[in-house]
Amino acid sequence: VRAVVFREPGRVEVDDVREPELVDPRDAIVRVSLSAICGSDLHFLHAKAPLEPGETMGHEAVGLVERVGAGVKSVSPGERVVVAFNIACGACWFCERGQSQLCEEARVLGAGLFGGSLGGAQAELVRIPNADVNLLPVPRDIDDERAIFVGDVLSSGYHAAEIASIRPGETVAIVGAGPVGNLVAQAALLHGPSEVIAIDLEPGRLALAADAGAVPVNAAQRNPQTAVFERTGGRGADVVIEAVGTLAAFERALDVVRRGGRVVVVGVYASEVFPAQLGVWWARALDVRFTGLCPVHGVWRRAMTEVARGRIDPLPLVSHRLGLEEAPKGYELFDRREASKVLLRP
Amino acid sequence: VRAVVFREPGRVEVDDVREPELVDPRDAIVRVSLSAICGSDLHFLHAKAPLEPGETMGHEAVGLVERVGAGVKSVSPGERVVVAFNIACGACWFCERGQSQLCEEARVLGAGLFGGSLGGAQAELVRIPNADVNLLPVPRDIDDERAIFVGDVLSSGYHAAEIASIRPGETVAIVGAGPVGNLVAQAALLHGPSEVIAIDLEPGRLALAADAGAVPVNAAQRNPQTAVFERTGGRGADVVIEAVGTLAAFERALDVVRRGGRVVVVGVYASEVFPAQLGVWWARALDVRFTGLCPVHGVWRRAMTEVARGRIDPLPLVSHRLGLEEAPKGYELFDRREASKVLLRP
Amino acid sequence: VRAVVFREPGRVEVDDVREPELVDPRDAIVRVSLSAICGSDLHFLHAKAPLEPGETMGHEAVGLVERVGAGVKSVSPGERVVVAFNIACGACWFCERGQSQLCEEARVLGAGLFGGSLGGAQAELVRIPNADVNLLPVPRDIDDERAIFVGDVLSSGYHAAEIASIRPGETVAIVGAGPVGNLVAQAALLHGPSEVIAIDLEPGRLALAADAGAVPVNAAQRNPQTAVFERTGGRGADVVIEAVGTLAAFERALDVVRRGGRVVVVGVYASEVFPAQLGVWWARALDVRFTGLCPVHGVWRRAMTEVARGRIDPLPLVSHRLGLEEAPKGYELFDRREASKVLLRP
Amino acid sequence: VRAVVFREPGRVEVDDVREPELVDPRDAIVRVSLSAICGSDLHFLHAKAPLEPGETMGHEAVGLVERVGAGVKSVSPGERVVVAFNIACGACWFCERGQSQLCEEARVLGAGLFGGSLGGAQAELVRIPNADVNLLPVPRDIDDERAIFVGDVLSSGYHAAEIASIRPGETVAIVGAGPVGNLVAQAALLHGPSEVIAIDLEPGRLALAADAGAVPVNAAQRNPQTAVFERTGGRGADVVIEAVGTLAAFERALDVVRRGGRVVVVGVYASEVFPAQLGVWWARALDVRFTGLCPVHGVWRRAMTEVARGRIDPLPLVSHRLGLEEAPKGYELFDRREASKVLLRP
Repeated sequence: VRAVVFREPGRVEVDDVREPELVDPRDAIVRVSLSAICGSDLHFLHAKAPLEPGETMGHEAVGLVERVGAGVKSVSPGERVVVAFNIACGACWFCERGQSQLCEEARVLGAGLFGGSLGGAQAELVRIPNADVNLLPVPRDIDDERAIFVGDVLSSGYHAAEIASIRPGETVAIVGAGPVGNLVAQAALLHGPSEVIAIDLEPGRLALAADAGAVPVNAAQRNPQTAVFERTGGRGADVVIEAVGTLAAFERALDVVRRGGRVVVVGVYASEVFPAQLGVWWARALDVRFTGLCPVHGVWRRAMTEVARGRIDPLPLVSHRLGLEEAPKGYELFDRREASKVLLRP
Repeated sequence: VRAVVFREPGRVEVDDVREPELVDPRDAIVRVSLSAICGSDLHFLHAKAPLEPGETMGHEAVGLVERVGAGVKSVSPGERVVVAFNIACGACWFCERGQSQLCEEARVLGAGLFGGSLGGAQAELVRIPNADVNLLPVPRDIDDERAIFVGDVLSSGYHAAEIASIRPGETVAIVGAGPVGNLVAQAALLHGPSEVIAIDLEPGRLALAADAGAVPVNAAQRNPQTAVFERTGGRGADVVIEAVGTLAAFERALDVVRRGGRVVVVGVYASEVFPAQLGVWWARALDVRFTGLCPVHGVWRRAMTEVARGRIDPLPLVSHRLGLEEAPKGYELFDRREASKVLLRP
Repeated sequence: VRAVVFREPGRVEVDDVREPELVDPRDAIVRVSLSAICGSDLHFLHAKAPLEPGETMGHEAVGLVERVGAGVKSVSPGERVVVAFNIACGACWFCERGQSQLCEEARVLGAGLFGGSLGGAQAELVRIPNADVNLLPVPRDIDDERAIFVGDVLSSGYHAAEIASIRPGETVAIVGAGPVGNLVAQAALLHGPSEVIAIDLEPGRLALAADAGAVPVNAAQRNPQTAVFERTGGRGADVVIEAVGTLAAFERALDVVRRGGRVVVVGVYASEVFPAQLGVWWARALDVRFTGLCPVHGVWRRAMTEVARGRIDPLPLVSHRLGLEEAPKGYELFDRREASKVLLRP
Repeated sequence: VRAVVFREPGRVEVDDVREPELVDPRDAIVRVSLSAICGSDLHFLHAKAPLEPGETMGHEAVGLVERVGAGVKSVSPGERVVVAFNIACGACWFCERGQSQLCEEARVLGAGLFGGSLGGAQAELVRIPNADVNLLPVPRDIDDERAIFVGDVLSSGYHAAEIASIRPGETVAIVGAGPVGNLVAQAALLHGPSEVIAIDLEPGRLALAADAGAVPVNAAQRNPQTAVFERTGGRGADVVIEAVGTLAAFERALDVVRRGGRVVVVGVYASEVFPAQLGVWWARALDVRFTGLCPVHGVWRRAMTEVARGRIDPLPLVSHRLGLEEAPKGYELFDRREASKVLLRP
């Protein structure tokens, strides 16, 4: 079967690979009808995260169940499903408490040894372990292009808005209006805030955020702290959600939150070290919550329902639709920041 | 009237000062029957926080209302009251939302210009602004020595335990078993945790914590992370409350909390800077909540009720009972760490 | 001064009455710029609730503070304020816990002996006890006609929606689209429900509810249970808010709520007895919450903010604007159900 | 295999029945090491609920997994497990939301046609559908006699205390100190109430409640409303949990709850009709929550943990331990109210 294969740092190809098989009775094989390139795939492309040459890539997919092991009960062959971007066991201490992002046996598709040596989703067929846990049926009225977001970034945004404990009438500021920030904004609006302020530097992203109902603030044109304070009686936002994952973005979040407010960090960090002024954080009575990866399994049903109702729509975030064979071009576009979201159809 | 007076860095005296007067119709004058020396008074003693020579000191007091302005309605002359350690307006945006620790007109007794130039509570008489807000009647069955804690450190501990959102059955670790940590432990036990683990270096403090129902862990004798992990199935505590206020204590809190757990910081920080490893915090899905000063006005009624019921008892924390005239000696003992809590009776 | 006076069952007049005076230092006298006739005034008109001939009526008012007692601190002469429809002490056990509708010294303006023998608000001047507690300043950008609702029915609707604990995505049904139901619908929409279904018999009310964003269901034209079940996958609404106050309405609420759902009862009941089928309620795991009167003092600031933002607008509910001297005509219209809300301007 | 068999109204026997088989790949067969007689079994005994002659009885069991279908993943042969008293599908709308007591395919062991025609648990072997959902492994340090309670009445008590939203310091009254009431009391104490008051008529039950930490009130000796009001400043209990299931008990619950308080109804009702005075409920701002059956699958892990820690101990509730062959005698004792809980060991 065809799949996107890692060749060497900076180079991927589409090639024939061995067809995946049921290894465990709880496995399912999914025939992929749509996969996607995600920001974290670039880490593998550039060998910041390790893959062996020949390993397949990608962790986002929608498709039809091809076949299932004897132990799979909640999905059947022929059913259309979306794949969870992190593969959880569904039974460990953390999974039982709804924190599947901390699953003790967490794996990731297409992430090499680090991810449990599972095949990638940018392929015609992909094996999904613990299929009852890691596949979600897609309602008929949701197309593949919307559904694929529910397995990853849309649920992340939904979750970030949820743990922010937004009360109706509060002001929410979002640092970063990329795909995650945009979806955070859409999800935050469901909680009845007085307004959602989206802060970014790129006019295109800000326009999309405004279309989604947010108040755009272009940080290239004016000081975002001033802008937020003007709209909040000089206090700052009740809730700030940081959706970038850089030290500058984290600092910005601290700048625009009010005293006694909450900061939720959904932007991904790795080895960054931030000099935290504990006395300032203390005096300001801050509450800083890091999401980690999204506990997608406890969130995605509700997220899917909101997509079905049209209350969250990820479609405007898609910048490119390519065939699977064009994946190398997609990686190139994405790597040059010319694409925001690339979908791949086998 | 007699009062503790700041003379020069390192030296306080008891001297005659001018009798306080009603300045505003909402003021009350309280005849102090018991005041106390608090850790933060040492900052003033050593001129880390500024006081002018001749200014009076202290912010903890219980006493009888001597007289009230025409605008005071909830307390009357003769009534026994405890004083709030931070003097709030009761009407600003933050006070209305129950975050009186962030009061826009916050003042502190005995804290010089920085605190609004109010007189100190280590005196025979003290003026209390906004008396309706900043004085709480003391029920008959609570003696002065217990009541005085409700105005400050006991309510701080009660509040810290409350915002930790402890669910019955969770494990709580407390870093620091000094007066705040001890009271945090007592308050945390009211939330039905499976156990409260108190971590400290001093056997005396640990013994008091154990008396209060906590499991003591002596960090001088064994690694507290190992100790906590042993008691929590290798995961760490669901909730950690940091009650010291040093970089080492903050780091310890991060060491003993489980992934996906909560850290509440009630220990006081000033200019400390901590190198926060954002990637680690993110991957561990941490939730870090800084209390700031205690919003005592929204907490102290409930805290007082628990003292009345005997479910929180601060009395074992008192190490010294002196007359007001002996205050300089009290400061000396406290400064040399020979006293844990010094009460002063005029 | 002029005021609406009860003469005999069925008859009110506008007459000269004695000017109200400051009785207690915490009193304020308010010069009424707008008052209103409320459904509960009809109980007094028809002597279902007792008034002595000559007593004045009404409990809703906006106006300017005329003068204040020495003990009043949060409002000043000249300030524009709205009056709380229930006059609370602000200091009893219930008031301290935010349940001022259960105040141990609760009084009501214009409600005779039963209400504490206070004068009515349908007058040129009215005395307000505990003015710090029972008057709320009105921001400049909110006109009198909107502000008057915040003192009563708008806050009731806001509170009912709040205690329903609506989670984003849930379906809310409201039984009754009169003024309370309409405001409940507007408030409920702030909590991010998937939809709010308004059930009533009158096309005019339903049209107003639809304007406010609700899905109207005319119970005269189709079975509301069927209509709700069709929109909720055959389950019923997650939350039902009953805003009428009749046995039929209560029964309807039970009909349209899903198993395991919540019913909030804001409609006013008196001596009605409902045969509760406990086995059915039990098997359906129902959660039934009665609001009682609104704890307006803990709610109205937030409600006022939403009016200022235009997110709740009571203005479409006003059917008649009369001069105070025309009050008898207003009572007549209201009594014949030809008016939905009558405002009176002195 | 041996099993308790329904013969005719009022008569059960122990007899040989056909060995249960795996019918579905998700089934498990459990070799019962301990079963029990529950109050609801008497309904079947007396034909108030229908059983055909020859059908087997009982729904509480602990045992060893004998064999499992190919689709079972979370339990294995040889593992010691407790059985859920209601057999849920684990995948329907309600199960997904944690309300498994409302499962759309709910079944009950030993409950005849009404319960899905499953065999009973008072037998040597029993078939458990959806074994992944309906079996919970028992930790080594919990003996069979404690574990069996976790599958039913202990989890019901735990759940009732949980949905009461008890805040530390509140007073809880429990109507009925039988097995459910006793376990409610133990669970309520984990939430830090100021006290738990247990109301009953039988000294033996009250003594057990007192041993568990509750304040006993013998309703045969004094008016329970007076007793509760004396202990709560004349207000009544903040939370009342009704654990009997009779009209008198429901009325008692309403008598002893404070205005603005919560009533949780865990006692089982069938066709009882209570004349609800809606005006009184409204004016008192009551919040009445019916548990329905316990959503045991979302509760039992936490409940089991508390049993392991010794914080909830059901053992004192066991009155009789018989062999399976003595089951008819057990039914007789239970029916004559001479037994509180009868355990049956094959």
